[in-house]
Amino acid sequence: MSDHDNRLMQRAIELARQGWHTTTPNPRVGCVIVNAGEVVGEGYHQRAGEPHAEVHALKSAGSKAAGATAYVTLEPCSHVGKTPPCADALIAAGIKTVVIGCQDPNPLVAGRGIAQLKAANITVKTGVLAPECEALNPGFFKRMRTGRPWVRVKIAMSLDGRIATQTGASQWITSEASRLAVQQLRAGACAVLTSSRTVMIDNPALNVRIPPDPPQSPCLMRQPTRVIVDSQLTISPDSQILHLPGKVIIFYHRAPVEKETALASLATLIQAPSHNGRVDLSAVMKTLGELGHNEILVEAGGLFAGALLSADLIDELIVYQAPLLLGHQAQAGFHLPDIFALTEAYAWTYERCRRVGNDIELVLTPR
Amino acid sequence: MSDHDNRLMQRAIELARQGWHTTTPNPRVGCVIVNAGEVVGEGYHQRAGEPHAEVHALKSAGSKAAGATAYVTLEPCSHVGKTPPCADALIAAGIKTVVIGCQDPNPLVAGRGIAQLKAANITVKTGVLAPECEALNPGFFKRMRTGRPWVRVKIAMSLDGRIATQTGASQWITSEASRLAVQQLRAGACAVLTSSRTVMIDNPALNVRIPPDPPQSPCLMRQPTRVIVDSQLTISPDSQILHLPGKVIIFYHRAPVEKETALASLATLIQAPSHNGRVDLSAVMKTLGELGHNEILVEAGGLFAGALLSADLIDELIVYQAPLLLGHQAQAGFHLPDIFALTEAYAWTYERCRRVGNDIELVLTPR
Repeated sequence: MSDHDNRLMQRAIELARQGWHTTTPNPRVGCVIVNAGEVVGEGYHQRAGEPHAEVHALKSAGSKAAGATAYVTLEPCSHVGKTPPCADALIAAGIKTVVIGCQDPNPLVAGRGIAQLKAANITVKTGVLAPECEALNPGFFKRMRTGRPWVRVKIAMSLDGRIATQTGASQWITSEASRLAVQQLRAGACAVLTSSRTVMIDNPALNVRIPPDPPQSPCLMRQPTRVIVDSQLTISPDSQILHLPGKVIIFYHRAPVEKETALASLATLIQAPSHNGRVDLSAVMKTLGELGHNEILVEAGGLFAGALLSADLIDELIVYQAPLLLGHQAQAGFHLPDIFALTEAYAWTYERCRRVGNDIELVLTPR
Repeated sequence: MSDHDNRLMQRAIELARQGWHTTTPNPRVGCVIVNAGEVVGEGYHQRAGEPHAEVHALKSAGSKAAGATAYVTLEPCSHVGKTPPCADALIAAGIKTVVIGCQDPNPLVAGRGIAQLKAANITVKTGVLAPECEALNPGFFKRMRTGRPWVRVKIAMSLDGRIATQTGASQWITSEASRLAVQQLRAGACAVLTSSRTVMIDNPALNVRIPPDPPQSPCLMRQPTRVIVDSQLTISPDSQILHLPGKVIIFYHRAPVEKETALASLATLIQAPSHNGRVDLSAVMKTLGELGHNEILVEAGGLFAGALLSADLIDELIVYQAPLLLGHQAQAGFHLPDIFALTEAYAWTYERCRRVGNDIELVLTPR
């Protein structure tokens, strides 16, 4: 694995990132085509149904693709989906070598694209910056492997772990810079998930409100699906979350028919099995995976975060920690069952830490 | 201010740091002597009563001090203390130029050393890396300016702001690396301050237990004074904190004479005024300053930390934050009076953030 390969794959990763907000339910993929040491084509996947990264890159390379090397962050597809297989396109263009970041995560498909390329006498190298390439698509990889989405819980807390004062004041614990970072998280998520309790207390929008850049240009932001867990359909039909552009799904367990009627025109209602009388959160995730959601961003309160934690459903925790102290009477970030010994604590690993405005952003994964 | 000056002052700062654990109640000071572009002498203050940094550096420079430039992190003293004035020594050695990091913080003395050097026709430059030089001695500077010590509160918390489980288990929330970092904090402190409650619950040693390096060498660590706030002298005379090498001070307000008698042989008892029936913490700090303590490290629980916070007595907060979640029933890091609106929250500024083992170390100052 040479520095040269790494550098070009790094460029393919940068390209893939340009599709960060838009490729769902497809993966983010980037491609660079190099001929005689010169980059002759670049591309990335932009939107499901539109051409894949390789096709964009081949198009920009034109005749210079013949005899060239293609760097692609994910194994090229070998099957006909909404678009023809990319392996065919690479072969047809006369590509001589394909350098691949990581294999297709779907165990039923993995290796087929590679085999097809090799059968056409193309040299194939794999595993170049594989962890970085996989990190482009935590949700797609998890869903392909397990059927379930990647669940990222965002929480805005004070230094002493509180999400609101004792009287419920929570707007805003964190700085504007942190709230902007959350907008980016939302924009990259397939769905934003919350609880009926949060809808009733905060009446949040949970939509993406990133201004277009430049300001005059039309806003092309995809709105993630807004998902509400509401066991008995208790939220008001007037909640603003139900009246904004984009899709809304409500998971419930059992509710009076008039509640169902009132909400059915505003959202897709999905009846889910129950766990201790409330919607089974594991079943919710399974269904969201089946519906093609790769990455779920959870934005709710301490009870819901605690319930997800207890059900072992969190893949990633993103904490915006404000340098405030709110004291012992303020509202806790995580409601959890009894923990007596420290060995019973939920243990995580700090993955990253950075300054965001006055706050710090901490990214953690389960230990 | 040249790069050259900065580089040599940086070296003087590094030298000063070598006295980090030992100079109290004196400041940490470093000195570099340069002749014709060559470093000819280096020194730092090691222990009160022993020679100052300039004298060590002059000694190592010998005859090469004549015509040389001295870099010193703090204005040379002009008064006779336990040792003769350094300004005199610099003049006598024939130093031609003195580059000073920051002026003496004592308003009654500031500028006198500089004036004396100038009167002897020495060129004096001041303010080279002044903030970095002052940061060597936050406690000395604060005490000289206000009579009070720098109060640094260390707290080991979970990610959700808890210092113990609901049953009080707290050993150990943080990793071994964090506990070693706390040993370094203790070693640099003039005094370690705790509450009677912590003594009764945890029976801590609060001494420095850094192994000598190399291991065969004698341990020369200075033991910081251990200070206990115990309004009614309720701690047991058997508490281990009272039976370890080093000085112990107990601040109390009112206690039965037999309690006084039992503890008087084990610690220095200081009667303090009360505030709401408990020892007035502001008076404690004033007394500790008068006794020559520059930096106080507080290691106690959520009640004591909250009391210091409410009394506006904390200059620096050092949080060792473990990636654990303990839930809403666990013990809070800060007990505070009612806070209803977010504008009433205690607001801080993140100064630094770094990984320490599995944990992160956060350094904050009041906003």
